[in-house]
Amino acid sequence: MSLTELEELAGEIRELILTTVAKNGGHLAPSLGTVELTLALYSVFDFSKDKLIWDVGHQAYTHKILTGRRDTFHTLRTLGGITGFPKRAESPFDSFGVGHASTSISAALGLLIAAELEKKSSRVIAVIGDGALTGGMAFEALNHAGQLKKNLLVVLNDNEMSIDKNVGALSEYLSKIRLKPQYHRAKKEFEGFVKNIPFRDVGEKILLAANSVRAGVTAAIFPGAIFETLGFTYLGPIDGHDLKGMKAVFSQVGVIDSPVLIHVTTTKGKGYPPAEISPEKFHGVGKFDKATGQVFKKKSPPSYTEIFSQAVIDCAARDKKIIAITAAMPSGTGLKKFAEKFPQRFFDVGIAEEHAVTLAAGMAAGGLKPVVAIYSTFMQRAYDQILHDVCLQNLPVVFCLDRAGLVGEDGATHHGAFDLAYLRTIPNMNILAPKDENELRQMIFAAFEKNFPVAIRYPRGAGLGVKVETQPQEISWGKAQVICQNPSAEIAIFAVGSMVKISSDAAKILHEKNISVDVINARFVKPFDTELIKKFSRTVKLLVTCEEGTLSGGYGSAVAEFLTDEKISTPLLRLGIKDKFIEQGTRPELLDLCDLTAEKISQRILERLNEIIFGFLTIST
Amino acid sequence: MSLTELEELAGEIRELILTTVAKNGGHLAPSLGTVELTLALYSVFDFSKDKLIWDVGHQAYTHKILTGRRDTFHTLRTLGGITGFPKRAESPFDSFGVGHASTSISAALGLLIAAELEKKSSRVIAVIGDGALTGGMAFEALNHAGQLKKNLLVVLNDNEMSIDKNVGALSEYLSKIRLKPQYHRAKKEFEGFVKNIPFRDVGEKILLAANSVRAGVTAAIFPGAIFETLGFTYLGPIDGHDLKGMKAVFSQVGVIDSPVLIHVTTTKGKGYPPAEISPEKFHGVGKFDKATGQVFKKKSPPSYTEIFSQAVIDCAARDKKIIAITAAMPSGTGLKKFAEKFPQRFFDVGIAEEHAVTLAAGMAAGGLKPVVAIYSTFMQRAYDQILHDVCLQNLPVVFCLDRAGLVGEDGATHHGAFDLAYLRTIPNMNILAPKDENELRQMIFAAFEKNFPVAIRYPRGAGLGVKVETQPQEISWGKAQVICQNPSAEIAIFAVGSMVKISSDAAKILHEKNISVDVINARFVKPFDTELIKKFSRTVKLLVTCEEGTLSGGYGSAVAEFLTDEKISTPLLRLGIKDKFIEQGTRPELLDLCDLTAEKISQRILERLNEIIFGFLTIST
Repeated sequence: MSLTELEELAGEIRELILTTVAKNGGHLAPSLGTVELTLALYSVFDFSKDKLIWDVGHQAYTHKILTGRRDTFHTLRTLGGITGFPKRAESPFDSFGVGHASTSISAALGLLIAAELEKKSSRVIAVIGDGALTGGMAFEALNHAGQLKKNLLVVLNDNEMSIDKNVGALSEYLSKIRLKPQYHRAKKEFEGFVKNIPFRDVGEKILLAANSVRAGVTAAIFPGAIFETLGFTYLGPIDGHDLKGMKAVFSQVGVIDSPVLIHVTTTKGKGYPPAEISPEKFHGVGKFDKATGQVFKKKSPPSYTEIFSQAVIDCAARDKKIIAITAAMPSGTGLKKFAEKFPQRFFDVGIAEEHAVTLAAGMAAGGLKPVVAIYSTFMQRAYDQILHDVCLQNLPVVFCLDRAGLVGEDGATHHGAFDLAYLRTIPNMNILAPKDENELRQMIFAAFEKNFPVAIRYPRGAGLGVKVETQPQEISWGKAQVICQNPSAEIAIFAVGSMVKISSDAAKILHEKNISVDVINARFVKPFDTELIKKFSRTVKLLVTCEEGTLSGGYGSAVAEFLTDEKISTPLLRLGIKDKFIEQGTRPELLDLCDLTAEKISQRILERLNEIIFGFLTIST
Repeated sequence: MSLTELEELAGEIRELILTTVAKNGGHLAPSLGTVELTLALYSVFDFSKDKLIWDVGHQAYTHKILTGRRDTFHTLRTLGGITGFPKRAESPFDSFGVGHASTSISAALGLLIAAELEKKSSRVIAVIGDGALTGGMAFEALNHAGQLKKNLLVVLNDNEMSIDKNVGALSEYLSKIRLKPQYHRAKKEFEGFVKNIPFRDVGEKILLAANSVRAGVTAAIFPGAIFETLGFTYLGPIDGHDLKGMKAVFSQVGVIDSPVLIHVTTTKGKGYPPAEISPEKFHGVGKFDKATGQVFKKKSPPSYTEIFSQAVIDCAARDKKIIAITAAMPSGTGLKKFAEKFPQRFFDVGIAEEHAVTLAAGMAAGGLKPVVAIYSTFMQRAYDQILHDVCLQNLPVVFCLDRAGLVGEDGATHHGAFDLAYLRTIPNMNILAPKDENELRQMIFAAFEKNFPVAIRYPRGAGLGVKVETQPQEISWGKAQVICQNPSAEIAIFAVGSMVKISSDAAKILHEKNISVDVINARFVKPFDTELIKKFSRTVKLLVTCEEGTLSGGYGSAVAEFLTDEKISTPLLRLGIKDKFIEQGTRPELLDLCDLTAEKISQRILERLNEIIFGFLTIST
């Protein structure tokens, strides 16, 4: 394709992405930023044998459109449709499934080693954003790749200029020079020369000069020093919207016999003015009006995120020891307002969940009360730090896990389905889930009063619209809350967080069938209210647990353990997410898929009750 | 203290460490390497207000001896004695508990922020080894600390010169110069000068020269460039056994208004020739003869580690697709022999468990069959990578988790008590545990035949001494193995891995009391043999699960879930590690502490059986 044709194609792709995301929601700004970068890569490399790994993958829409998914692109992020991230099952061009940050260099190195051992000559390319590069495992991978000296190509998609200083034309010019083979000879010769300097005899003056050059030269003239130190040849920065320039650089990479990092600068939201102006707003966005950039907002109650935000601010106003930490998500977690109000007490560590948690542990050991706000799915990254640095020392860190449960359109990589299960394995951990936004606020108040680790998990999106009490209300630690009690209830549903409302609706359906059901807001998953379970086990025919989380090790599992250990034989029906990964869709679609709607819950309970009453219960011995 | 007195003290401390570790076992070489470093730090800083964080903490024996634990040091690593790692509950001088690598800079930064907010003027110092520095979270922390520009002091304890090139005297000289205040003025002036160069007009010649200087200068003359880029002032390398030199540098650090990294070179095992010659052997060592350096070895069957080593080599000889990955533990995991035999197919990624797992995922996506060998406790670091990169894509990666269960003297930070529970939460994961060393070998054979993720966990130390079959034997996937079956058994014990032998011994004790017990080798924790459990549930009075792992979410939990879901009311007694952290001690002591000896198991079963027979079983409804 000629340059003009490519530029035309870029325009068409941009239009398709824009139209689709306006309708379906999605990662607009990142994907608009990489249209030319993707086209340049596809012009130079042959991805029928070469391999391309996108870090996170939210910038890969152009890649999807170019690899057989143009016609189905309108199904983006819908149930059964094209996923929002590369996915191996979806296309042979999706060499590695992604979603969480900082994995691309590790995966690319693995694919490169595989290709080499199988004697296939293929280039492997990882495209990683400057944000994802702050994740520790990206560093681990660079460090390893640099040592192995394999011809890995890493493209650093720098859209915020947050890595090193941007020195513009000089660096572009340098990158052109460096691609010439004579550079590599010169470099080798120079290294030989340096090795042979009898340094002990060099006068103080030269050393002083060399020394003062060091920091300045390193940072100002050579922005790639950090990558060079790690064994990479650094090229760039080059303009990531200049197709011609990128093609020229990419096609000469083969000359260099070492790992190469090409630093490309792009503009998030490129080509769509509203997104260029507010790239943050259009990073991951819901449906919006293409013409105006106005995001469609349903009038809805405040979100859990907003309630979290205000509650932490209110606590922090009263208690100077409260500190807030986020991992690259000040807006997403709602801590942006906190940062404005208490800039000295707010820390955004970048995409670095492990550091975030151990930093909090250090603060807590120093007498502070940190809250770490990380989405449920990303908290998985810090399992060991939660266990080894926080819980083993029983330090008062408050974890707030937003986006717990089914998150909807982001799909399998992003559902917060595991938190209850993995957190429950850790001694000293306390796990709470609020039934509504007011309870979230109250739980945050209560958590800061405690002198041990507390995790609070809550769903994505709007609250239920209940009245939010400004003043702290009592949350009796480890105690559940009976929502509706009927003296003659045959069934007790112990529901966790988001499932309380849905279980109450299920109870109503059952009431209409003349079955009396008690609903209990579990509130605590660890330690949970064993007394109340014991009490109900004596009076009801069936106990039910209901949670928006995996059944393998979650709350229902804890209750099953308890009943087993306490030799209580009251039947227990465990409702939750089955032991498999859940795809994308709207939250209602996915709740239905997981049999977690009021209708399906009432049905499951009814079936089980009939079994019990009509004697299908298997009793051994 | 005068320099002579300090040197004398160093000798005494070395002697105490040597004598104690020869008797108790422990981390000899790391702690011998830091005697002078610790003394220099204690000479300069005031740790009644300053804070010192040791990364991993296996080098902190001198620190312990200096802070009130000299008289009790002989109890090192014994039940109720001094722990092998810093621990907050043990001393106010242990500012942060450690054990796993790469946490110190995060924790130190947290403590520094806490001190600043509380307006305490205290220095916070992290001492981190060159090994621990490869862990991604150390990079995350450096990256964050550099941005915050706080006066954090990081001491890089480089005992293998594996970070950057060691340029000896020049660098020492440079560090002396850099401490002079005029350096910082010069640096600022130079930076201003560089900023004002009109780079567009500079001729190609100068650029070429500058460019060729770049990589060479960076790597050869300025080993600290990577730290400078991250915002640290780099000093060093300096001799970590030169008390006078270190004191001089440490006492001038206050002059520098930025984060500082001091690169100290030490010799592992310093002062004890056998350890200096074989620092690896004396890194973590059992009891040995102080005079000769001969490690006492009980004549014992081959260890699980040795069996793993040979099995992987045998598989790799037959299958070229098999690749082995370790995270800084070629000796510990037994992969050293594999590395010698198949150097092209062996990868030691350093302390970088996250990268190790995603690298394996990349390899598997590229058609290879990687095995990742990481101790159970350290695999916790890669929970998200196992979930998101391996299991979500259902890739054939084999995980071998050595040191599963109670590891003994290393204590709370190192027990592999959580693997069954956290791995079980992940869809698509397969989890196996061998009852003896032959079964480990067979499981490895079987795992490489599969096209999905498999984790095999096995204990530290010697096997049972059974015959090891060279040729692959059938392992029926997901099926348990009945060890001894009695037609009239009242009890069935489903035991996991190491607990099979102990459960068999418990069964013998019960047989002597005329109670008939079947013992089943569970073999699979996921998917486990539900058919066999069902079958036994119909014939026995009591089912028992027994595992060397946490009861919160482990194998017994899975069985409780199953019985609950299948409406099977046969009583179940779950034996395992309670939901708390377990301290140090010998393995037998700890098994006793956890009620996991044959004697105690038989007692628990007997009590429960009596309850069942004599009607103490609570049945509701």
